Amino acid sequence: MLGRLYETQNCSAARALELVGERWSLLILRDAMFGNLTRFSQFQKSLGIATNILAKRLEGFVAAGLMEHRQPGDSGEQAEYVLTQKGLELKPVIIALTEWGDKWVRPGPVVYQNESDGRPVELQLRRVGDDTQVAIADIVARLR
Amino acid sequence: MLGRLYETQNCSAARALELVGERWSLLILRDAMFGNLTRFSQFQKSLGIATNILAKRLEGFVAAGLMEHRQPGDSGEQAEYVLTQKGLELKPVIIALTEWGDKWVRPGPVVYQNESDGRPVELQLRRVGDDTQVAIADIVARLR
Repeated sequence: MLGRLYETQNCSAARALELVGERWSLLILRDAMFGNLTRFSQFQKSLGIATNILAKRLEGFVAAGLMEHRQPGDSGEQAEYVLTQKGLELKPVIIALTEWGDKWVRPGPVVYQNESDGRPVELQLRRVGDDTQVAIADIVARLR
Repeated sequence: MLGRLYETQNCSAARALELVGERWSLLILRDAMFGNLTRFSQFQKSLGIATNILAKRLEGFVAAGLMEHRQPGDSGEQAEYVLTQKGLELKPVIIALTEWGDKWVRPGPVVYQNESDGRPVELQLRRVGDDTQVAIADIVARLR
């Protein structure tokens, strides 16, 4: 009943949260996006979570198209879980959560930066087309 | 055990998700941010959720400082739950989730726009200081 009502809400934000909103899911994606981890053993070592939970989350990401499961070749290496473009494009969600947590909970250990020059980056709200920056208070929603 | 390990991850994004990551929480915040709902009965009517769940979520938001509980005056009106600045600044999280869901799941019914001129807005990743736009693929994380 909860699920049915919830599904009628037809909200892109809610549907995105279904995929990343579980506690460990976000940390696995973070390690894949920003720690360049791809192997089961790397995620397990980084996060210290139970292998059955990790396996379930990685399978879920593959099923949802956020990761691709690459089988090992003949070299005897482990299979890899590699983020797809769909998965990589969740970066702004992680960055938005981080920026808010840094400001309103406490500063965390991570900063985001431009790879080529090492300079810090941030999310900004901009008007589409002319790039004018818009204040949070001035943003409203309307039906499409 | 899960909780203890999770807490050692010391991640701003994870801490933010603790507050908004529950399914109904996001929808309540969405209605408060973008539907200007403030009263218990308005949230209940909009979302159709059980009153005990709604009461628990609203109390949680007040406890976390995301909402302020304003008692009614002598007019006999209902108490209001009003977003604080801390709560309002979660807008970029909701917008980031929406943009991703619109693109990668299916287009939802809502667009975000600048209140004064009605023109659409979007989140952009920019270099701090000189405002240069940065591509998602070029963003890395480092320890502070």
